Amino acid sequence: MAKIESVRSDFYQLPLDVELSDSTHGAIPHFEFVTVRIKDSDGGEGSGYTYAVNSGAAAFHALIEGYLAPMLIGRDADEIEKLWQDMWWKVHYSGRGGHATSAISAVDIALWDLKARRAGAPLWRLLGGYDPKVPVYAGGIDLDFTIDALLAQADGFLAHGHRAIKMKAGRPHLREDIERVRRMREHLGDDFPLMVDANMRWSVDQAIRAARELAEFNLVWLEEPTIPDDIPGHVRVVREGRTPVATGENMHTLYEFQAMISAGGVTYPEPDVTNCGGVTVFRKIAAVAEAHNLPVTSHGAHDITLHLLAAAPNRTYMEVHGFSLDRFVAEPMVFEEGFTVAPERPGHGIELDWSQLEQYRR
Amino acid sequence: MAKIESVRSDFYQLPLDVELSDSTHGAIPHFEFVTVRIKDSDGGEGSGYTYAVNSGAAAFHALIEGYLAPMLIGRDADEIEKLWQDMWWKVHYSGRGGHATSAISAVDIALWDLKARRAGAPLWRLLGGYDPKVPVYAGGIDLDFTIDALLAQADGFLAHGHRAIKMKAGRPHLREDIERVRRMREHLGDDFPLMVDANMRWSVDQAIRAARELAEFNLVWLEEPTIPDDIPGHVRVVREGRTPVATGENMHTLYEFQAMISAGGVTYPEPDVTNCGGVTVFRKIAAVAEAHNLPVTSHGAHDITLHLLAAAPNRTYMEVHGFSLDRFVAEPMVFEEGFTVAPERPGHGIELDWSQLEQYRR
Repeated sequence: MAKIESVRSDFYQLPLDVELSDSTHGAIPHFEFVTVRIKDSDGGEGSGYTYAVNSGAAAFHALIEGYLAPMLIGRDADEIEKLWQDMWWKVHYSGRGGHATSAISAVDIALWDLKARRAGAPLWRLLGGYDPKVPVYAGGIDLDFTIDALLAQADGFLAHGHRAIKMKAGRPHLREDIERVRRMREHLGDDFPLMVDANMRWSVDQAIRAARELAEFNLVWLEEPTIPDDIPGHVRVVREGRTPVATGENMHTLYEFQAMISAGGVTYPEPDVTNCGGVTVFRKIAAVAEAHNLPVTSHGAHDITLHLLAAAPNRTYMEVHGFSLDRFVAEPMVFEEGFTVAPERPGHGIELDWSQLEQYRR
Repeated sequence: MAKIESVRSDFYQLPLDVELSDSTHGAIPHFEFVTVRIKDSDGGEGSGYTYAVNSGAAAFHALIEGYLAPMLIGRDADEIEKLWQDMWWKVHYSGRGGHATSAISAVDIALWDLKARRAGAPLWRLLGGYDPKVPVYAGGIDLDFTIDALLAQADGFLAHGHRAIKMKAGRPHLREDIERVRRMREHLGDDFPLMVDANMRWSVDQAIRAARELAEFNLVWLEEPTIPDDIPGHVRVVREGRTPVATGENMHTLYEFQAMISAGGVTYPEPDVTNCGGVTVFRKIAAVAEAHNLPVTSHGAHDITLHLLAAAPNRTYMEVHGFSLDRFVAEPMVFEEGFTVAPERPGHGIELDWSQLEQYRR
C-alpha cells in the first residue's frame, strides 16, 4: 500500500497565442490553469490539472488547497473510487458538482497518473485498452474571425494533420452563421467531417430553426445548441432539428449525463475529463453512453482525454482543443491523417515544464 | 442611478454551541460563513451572506473576491437582474451552479438589501408583501442525540415558542429511526406538526420502505430521502411512499427546481436563499412552485428567508436553522405560538456585529 504523502496545487493564468472568442465567453485572451502534484510513500508521483475559460479557477485552487489536499494525506493512493467518494461528500453541501468537480477532477487525474506510473503502464492500457489510434478533430474558437481568417485557420488545421474541424456559430444573425458554414463546406468538400458549436447561444426554438437550416450541410453534429439545464429542450432539438446534437462540456456530474442521455437529448455526449469528475467519472459516462448505444466524444484537455478514448470501444472523434499546452509539455501530440496515437509512456505521459510555467503563476 | 462603489467580502468559521450531526455531514462543530458588503455612490449600504456546512466556503470567497466584486464596480446597483445574469455567465464555465450560486447569492442578497434600504422599506414589502406573520419550524440537527436528548431538545423548542419541529433520520438501522419518530410523536401529540429529514442517506428503495413505515406518524414531510440528482427516484418516493417529500437545500439553480417540480418529485420545495442564487432566484422558485400548485418552504438563513416567505402567497413553514447567527445580530428573531413576524426595519434588517465576528476570521 502506497500512502499519499503530499498534495501540491498551483494556479496559473496562461495567455493564448491568438485571442479567441465564442458566443458565450466573448473575447478569451487567456485561460486559467490549476495543477495538482501528488507524491506517495514509495516515491511515486502523479500529476493532474483542470482549467477554466477566463474565470473561476481560483475556486478550484481554494477547494484543493483548503479541503481536498488535507483529507488525502496518509490515505491509500490506490483506492481512488473511495477517495473520490470522500472528496465528493467533503465539499458536497457547498456545491454538489459545480466547481467541486473540477477540483476533484484535477486530483483524480493525478491519482490515476500515479497508479499507472506505479504499474509502469500507459493510462489507456491500465483503463482496459481498446485502440491507441484515436480519430481527432480540431476545435476552432473562431466566432469573430472573418471568413477569410476562418478558411485560413482551416488550412492550418489541414496542414497540421487534421481531417475533421469544428467551427463556432451564434453570430447576431443566423444568416451569418449559415453563410460561414456554407463557405467552410465549399472549402472543405462535401464529405469532410465538419461540426458546428453554438456555445448555448440559442433558445430552443432558435436552435431548432438553426438546426433545420444547417441540415443541408450534413454536419457531424451541432454542439450546445442551448443551455444544458434544459433537457426537454434538447430532446426537441434532436427530434425536430434533423441534425445530431453534442453537449456535455458544461455538465458536471454523472447524473447530469445520465438524465440527458436517457431522455434522448444528446447524440454525442462530450464530457470534459477536467470538469466532469476526472478519469473516474469520464469512464462511467462513456459506459452510460455505450449502454444507450451512443458514441462518446470529448471536450478540452486532449492530452489526458486521449487515454480515455483509447480505452473506450464507443469512442468517436476527440476534440483537440484551442487551449493548447504544447509550449509546456515535453512531447506534444502529433496528428496524421486525422488521427493521433496514445503514447506508451507510463501514466498519462505528460511532463509539464514547471519552470516555464512559473512566469504565469497567479 | 446609484453606482456600486465597493464590494467587500469576509470569510469566517463560526463555532456552534453544541456539536451537531446529520447522516451526510457527520459531526458538525462549526459552519463556514462568508459575508458581502456593498456601498454605492450615494452612501447607501447593503449586506449579504452565504454559508457552508463544514467545508467549501473558501471557494465562495475566492469567487467573490477574484471575479464577482471587480465586475460590479461602477455598475448601476438597481439593475439586479442584469447584474445577476452577468455574474452567472462570468463564472458559468467554471461551475454552472455549484459554488457559483452561493457566491452570487451573497452578492445578490446584499444588492437587494441595498435596494430596500434605499427605498426605506423592509425587504418583504419591497418584494410584494403578502403577510409578515410566517409559520416556522425548528430544525433539529440531532441524528446522534440520545432519545432523552432529542425529547429535551423538543421541550426547549416548545419553550422557545415553536409549534413545529423537524428531526433527523438516517440511523444505521431503520427501526432506530422509527423508534425515535414514535417517541417524538408520543411526546408531542398526534396533531403536532413533525417533519423528518434523512439528508440523502437512503437509496430510492430504502426511502420508499422508510416512507411507508413512517406513514403512520402523519409527518408533514420526509426531507431529502435520497440524492437530489435522482429525479425519477423522487417521483417514486412521492407516489409509492405515501408521505409528502421535501427537497431543495442541495439544488443550486432555478432549472433544477423546475425539473424536480414539473416531474412531480417534490411536495415541499425548499430552496436555500444563500445557495440557490439569492433573493432573485428564490422568488422565481417560489413562483414556479405556485404555478405548480405547491407550497414553498425554506432551508437555512432564516433571517433573510423570512422576507421572502412574508412576500409569497404560497409560503408554508419557514425553517429556523440550527446554524444561528443570534450571537452576532442586534435584534434576533422572536417566536410566538409557532410564528414569527417580519421586521419593519429597512432592508433585511440584520445588523451584524462585525467586531464580534472578527475573532472567527479565516
